[in-house]
Amino acid sequence: MSRKIRTAQSVSFDKPASEQPYLHNRWHPEDSADDVRDVDLTKIHYLTGPFDIQGSEPGDLLVVNITDVQPFDHSPWGFTGVFAKSNGGGFLDEHYPDAAKAIWDFDGIYATSRHIPGVRFAGLIHPGILGCAPSAEILAEWNRREADLVSTMGRSDPRKVLAQPPNKQNAHAGQATGDVQARIAREGARTIPGRPEHGGNCDINNISRGSTTYLPVHVAGAKFSVGDLHFSQGDGEISFCGAIEMAGIITIKFDLIKGGMKSRGLKSPVFKPGDMGPSYGPSRYLIFEGFSVDEKGKQHFMDATVAYRQACLRAIEYLKQFGYSGEQIYLLLSSAPVKGTIAGIVDIPNVCTTLGIPMDIFDFDISIENEPVKRDLGACPVSK
Amino acid sequence: MSRKIRTAQSVSFDKPASEQPYLHNRWHPEDSADDVRDVDLTKIHYLTGPFDIQGSEPGDLLVVNITDVQPFDHSPWGFTGVFAKSNGGGFLDEHYPDAAKAIWDFDGIYATSRHIPGVRFAGLIHPGILGCAPSAEILAEWNRREADLVSTMGRSDPRKVLAQPPNKQNAHAGQATGDVQARIAREGARTIPGRPEHGGNCDINNISRGSTTYLPVHVAGAKFSVGDLHFSQGDGEISFCGAIEMAGIITIKFDLIKGGMKSRGLKSPVFKPGDMGPSYGPSRYLIFEGFSVDEKGKQHFMDATVAYRQACLRAIEYLKQFGYSGEQIYLLLSSAPVKGTIAGIVDIPNVCTTLGIPMDIFDFDISIENEPVKRDLGACPVSK
Amino acid sequence: MSRKIRTAQSVSFDKPASEQPYLHNRWHPEDSADDVRDVDLTKIHYLTGPFDIQGSEPGDLLVVNITDVQPFDHSPWGFTGVFAKSNGGGFLDEHYPDAAKAIWDFDGIYATSRHIPGVRFAGLIHPGILGCAPSAEILAEWNRREADLVSTMGRSDPRKVLAQPPNKQNAHAGQATGDVQARIAREGARTIPGRPEHGGNCDINNISRGSTTYLPVHVAGAKFSVGDLHFSQGDGEISFCGAIEMAGIITIKFDLIKGGMKSRGLKSPVFKPGDMGPSYGPSRYLIFEGFSVDEKGKQHFMDATVAYRQACLRAIEYLKQFGYSGEQIYLLLSSAPVKGTIAGIVDIPNVCTTLGIPMDIFDFDISIENEPVKRDLGACPVSK
Amino acid sequence: MSRKIRTAQSVSFDKPASEQPYLHNRWHPEDSADDVRDVDLTKIHYLTGPFDIQGSEPGDLLVVNITDVQPFDHSPWGFTGVFAKSNGGGFLDEHYPDAAKAIWDFDGIYATSRHIPGVRFAGLIHPGILGCAPSAEILAEWNRREADLVSTMGRSDPRKVLAQPPNKQNAHAGQATGDVQARIAREGARTIPGRPEHGGNCDINNISRGSTTYLPVHVAGAKFSVGDLHFSQGDGEISFCGAIEMAGIITIKFDLIKGGMKSRGLKSPVFKPGDMGPSYGPSRYLIFEGFSVDEKGKQHFMDATVAYRQACLRAIEYLKQFGYSGEQIYLLLSSAPVKGTIAGIVDIPNVCTTLGIPMDIFDFDISIENEPVKRDLGACPVSK
Repeated sequence: MSRKIRTAQSVSFDKPASEQPYLHNRWHPEDSADDVRDVDLTKIHYLTGPFDIQGSEPGDLLVVNITDVQPFDHSPWGFTGVFAKSNGGGFLDEHYPDAAKAIWDFDGIYATSRHIPGVRFAGLIHPGILGCAPSAEILAEWNRREADLVSTMGRSDPRKVLAQPPNKQNAHAGQATGDVQARIAREGARTIPGRPEHGGNCDINNISRGSTTYLPVHVAGAKFSVGDLHFSQGDGEISFCGAIEMAGIITIKFDLIKGGMKSRGLKSPVFKPGDMGPSYGPSRYLIFEGFSVDEKGKQHFMDATVAYRQACLRAIEYLKQFGYSGEQIYLLLSSAPVKGTIAGIVDIPNVCTTLGIPMDIFDFDISIENEPVKRDLGACPVSK
Repeated sequence: MSRKIRTAQSVSFDKPASEQPYLHNRWHPEDSADDVRDVDLTKIHYLTGPFDIQGSEPGDLLVVNITDVQPFDHSPWGFTGVFAKSNGGGFLDEHYPDAAKAIWDFDGIYATSRHIPGVRFAGLIHPGILGCAPSAEILAEWNRREADLVSTMGRSDPRKVLAQPPNKQNAHAGQATGDVQARIAREGARTIPGRPEHGGNCDINNISRGSTTYLPVHVAGAKFSVGDLHFSQGDGEISFCGAIEMAGIITIKFDLIKGGMKSRGLKSPVFKPGDMGPSYGPSRYLIFEGFSVDEKGKQHFMDATVAYRQACLRAIEYLKQFGYSGEQIYLLLSSAPVKGTIAGIVDIPNVCTTLGIPMDIFDFDISIENEPVKRDLGACPVSK
Repeated sequence: MSRKIRTAQSVSFDKPASEQPYLHNRWHPEDSADDVRDVDLTKIHYLTGPFDIQGSEPGDLLVVNITDVQPFDHSPWGFTGVFAKSNGGGFLDEHYPDAAKAIWDFDGIYATSRHIPGVRFAGLIHPGILGCAPSAEILAEWNRREADLVSTMGRSDPRKVLAQPPNKQNAHAGQATGDVQARIAREGARTIPGRPEHGGNCDINNISRGSTTYLPVHVAGAKFSVGDLHFSQGDGEISFCGAIEMAGIITIKFDLIKGGMKSRGLKSPVFKPGDMGPSYGPSRYLIFEGFSVDEKGKQHFMDATVAYRQACLRAIEYLKQFGYSGEQIYLLLSSAPVKGTIAGIVDIPNVCTTLGIPMDIFDFDISIENEPVKRDLGACPVSK
Repeated sequence: MSRKIRTAQSVSFDKPASEQPYLHNRWHPEDSADDVRDVDLTKIHYLTGPFDIQGSEPGDLLVVNITDVQPFDHSPWGFTGVFAKSNGGGFLDEHYPDAAKAIWDFDGIYATSRHIPGVRFAGLIHPGILGCAPSAEILAEWNRREADLVSTMGRSDPRKVLAQPPNKQNAHAGQATGDVQARIAREGARTIPGRPEHGGNCDINNISRGSTTYLPVHVAGAKFSVGDLHFSQGDGEISFCGAIEMAGIITIKFDLIKGGMKSRGLKSPVFKPGDMGPSYGPSRYLIFEGFSVDEKGKQHFMDATVAYRQACLRAIEYLKQFGYSGEQIYLLLSSAPVKGTIAGIVDIPNVCTTLGIPMDIFDFDISIENEPVKRDLGACPVSK
């Protein structure tokens, strides 16, 4: 009798990902694999798979029911990072251009950080990435449209990173060899953005335990991959490496809806969250508003991205009054169970978004009613 | 002894708003008032106020605790509209350019519509608009930055409505007369967008019963106004006239935090939702994903607005299979308690947003597990 | 067009119930009626009805969907009482033998009391009583078994009130006259206890807005009655007149499941709560434990009633430290949204029950972490 | 660096508990330990401890924050049992006198059973037992009052088991030897009931992950013990061995409130639940009512135990229509997240209790709206 959680593949952090043939870091119809631990963006992400799902064919929906995610018990910790503006950046890199980091310790299902004292929360644990392999046609479409973006927008600001086109450097094609390996390296889609045809790097935090996701199948066998396990993540994952990244184990049940893309009329993933998660009560959130007027006073036209950035910046300014540095809160909003909502998206020219912070994750009172008291809340490592 | 809910001002729907001096429809430091019933956008919105809050001065925070909102008992109904693309438009006007409408009947705290059969839900009832009057400086800044937008962006597409600058037509300045009235008509800020300095038309649905909002005070007496009561509204209010608009009564308790803008470090409103609302359980939502690749296959760069539109369009396509028209669902997503979330906003070039639909508002099963069956779900009025 | 909530019957508090023929205060297959405002227990309860439900026959299930309950807008207040031990008593009458009272003011959907300062909560508003008339056979069975109880138990303690047998005094038989009226007065079941065959005075607080209750039908036309509206009630309604009693309006939709008692195998009511109510988050309750060892140290055998009384007494002792009198808390636990749970009912000889108090209803901190500080919390009227 | 969850004590299921000196199965101020795997009630329960909490003294409150509970990963299963009426019995042993059993398989945080098909639910995982050792005085009081019960009530029915007095047979005193061991065996309190002075076997299912329990300390060092881990348990744990019993690991953080019994006025444990658990939405429960009229038609006086039994029996009769045996449902109501509530406890002579069943744990529709369809739902082992 097996004495362990049944495991299809184990990932080791004791040898380089590139030596582990069951990993991959490119999306490709023929094979794919992934890994990253540091900020070389040509290396991320470590994906486990691709799994061949018996009987699945293009046009099916793969039903992915996540019944558990947990950190390895020998690895009860994780980290959240801010990438330097010069190397990846993040949502607030105009304001926080330097790299920063927080280490989190897991005390059961709760996380605390030596770098962000005063907070503790249960993880809404989930994979940042899940999806099936693209078909050759879809892969070609991805590469075309992202190249178009770079060639169009890139003219006005050639220094700005607009997309992550295929890149042979550090491509890890799992067990593929020879010709296939070379094509994967040359054509394989990078894992940084999620994409509508398969989901991928969607970073949706409530695809958590108990959730059921319906994924379009584009190739025979589905070639499902999963990875980028997060102990917790705020809506938006704003610092880019913004969830609590962890090493762990995910348990999945698969099912198929044959021909489901057509019979259900679906071209993109849909999902139902699980019935298990942290629950704070609606009135326990302190919520900041953000509109599409940027921090320099410029009016943008119906720009939800600008609006959400404003909500984040306002929350940071508020929480700094309690003694945190801006970087500490930037990391916290990225990783804690904060809620990012599109409130109103029609009142020309302002989108209104909100950012809700659960007050009960703090061990002091952050409500507006009492005047903030500055306390010693340490610091997180920041490197210029 | 009073035998009624204590009422500071009553709004009548039996005579024109312009004949009611306690209404106004412009934001202005000296006076203001508002009213609208039809699609003449120079008329909206009916605001009640401004209320002079004793003792309030610029720099204070006005604490607005909403303890009830309900439809008038003689008026147990509301409506949701889609504006024509040629007159106001909405979030999906490229796809649904014609005007459309649904009437809702209130059965206690529940709404049903003869125009969208098969759904019923309890309202998360709230005002779409609440805020204090701007100072002269803030008003000038609003007018400057919105004019800048029009002059800059307007050059590339002169036909597109980019903002709603001051407009004398149908300005209703409440009790103001003479010179003040003329200035309000000439300079007064329109109520269509919310703005970060005071909130205003934020359309945040969980500023509902039990909520507490902290509003910056910019003029002596605060000059608080409120209006645009919604029986229910989905996140985004996507069809513009998208909430269930209703005539009703709001009950508010006020308090002041003297000097609160400085002591709490706040330049924009923040709020805590109430502890009362419809509650469906996390696993009872069917959630659609949207990325910043538009429906023509064009890749946009980190555009949350494009991404949310995709999630909406996908949900519409899905629900049409059950027999609804596109307009019916457009109206439904605008008005029902759907959740719009910014899931991931850092994976270049794709923002990922989600749109969650509570499955329990339907009287048939919309889950993916079963194949949709087309049924007769009537129609809503659409006028070309 | 009607300009009011559609109303089948209005109850006036300006003339005696006995002069209002659409009320009744006895359960009887031939007619029925109800009323009470004071502690003459032969008078309670005012029930509205009986309503004849077209097409309903014995064996059906009457589907009762409550779509709203609210206080009359001319009557925004309610009360909670402790009956004197010598006249009705209550769950803790050994400890609190004197009559006591709290008046509650309704500020929208929230209640506060001049007699219990420091608390405020939204009401989980509901009828304490709803049910269909008993058949003649069921009525006879009720009278038999309650008489048996009195004759058996009454021998050991003849002074104790064990049940409320039929009582002509103050019987109000609605529109019944002559012979029928006399029989109703003589045989009609009192409304004080709920009973398994029809529900009746069940005092279940989550039969609130949005709930659907399935009631057995025992006579042609169902003869449904409803009353005893509560703005709020704690689990157990421990002080007997323990909910916030109010004058108000209830909105109901009826449906029938023909032959449902047999096809669904139901002999007693079942229900589904609504999706609308106050929601505090699980971790915001402070929960007291009670076992079936009474306050004198006597061990009882598996007695959940004794156990719940212990939990209540412990909560009272705890909250008294903040400055409340015992009577104030007794009234509060009766009327606020506290949760009474049967935790373990098998570990011989101790039942374990719990009483959970939502901490967010207090405007000071009642958590264990901080030492209670006695404050001036006024008093409630107590009359010996 | 440690590569495992930090563990104070490991329990092995590969050798008898009596050979493991860090277990005990009696409560005693001098030492104690516990273990059981079968139905010899002189053996249960395996408790881990006692832990000496540094600095704790009588009168303190021990703060027990459970940050995780999970099954061993080599043991992803559990069981629920019905004891035979002749050997332990349970809440419904008059109706289900035979022993029965269900095995549960854990698929991540979800449980399913080969013996109760058609259901699946996430566990509200918790210890059934936690408490500090009694003082000598408290132990003497326990033994006195339980002996009094046996001597008083036992006269009328000498065959009925009324309590579990001290019993040398199979007493396991952990590391105690000689005289102490003998006294523990002779005097040590059995672990079957919980008791108000220390909690103990309270079987409260929301003392789960994230919960904080405040336990009275009665002896120097507190001597805290914990055990009886449950993957899930319904309110009441009605079949006695009614939770999903599992082998697993619990992670706890301790703190002390010095002198807390006096400064907080507490004689019994109190707790705050965690913020993590399964969440179904209030309207997803089907709720049965039970009154204190027993199944033979006898009226009891204000007996909540009788009333809750009625609610359970009604739920069983209802669910049997779908194809389950009575024993299957008895096991299910014991172990699934059902809610047992004391609704009304003052309406003489009837207590009203309710039993709520989350409908979403079934993979078919159990709502009243549709007529039950009998299906093949297998069977659970029953042994006469």
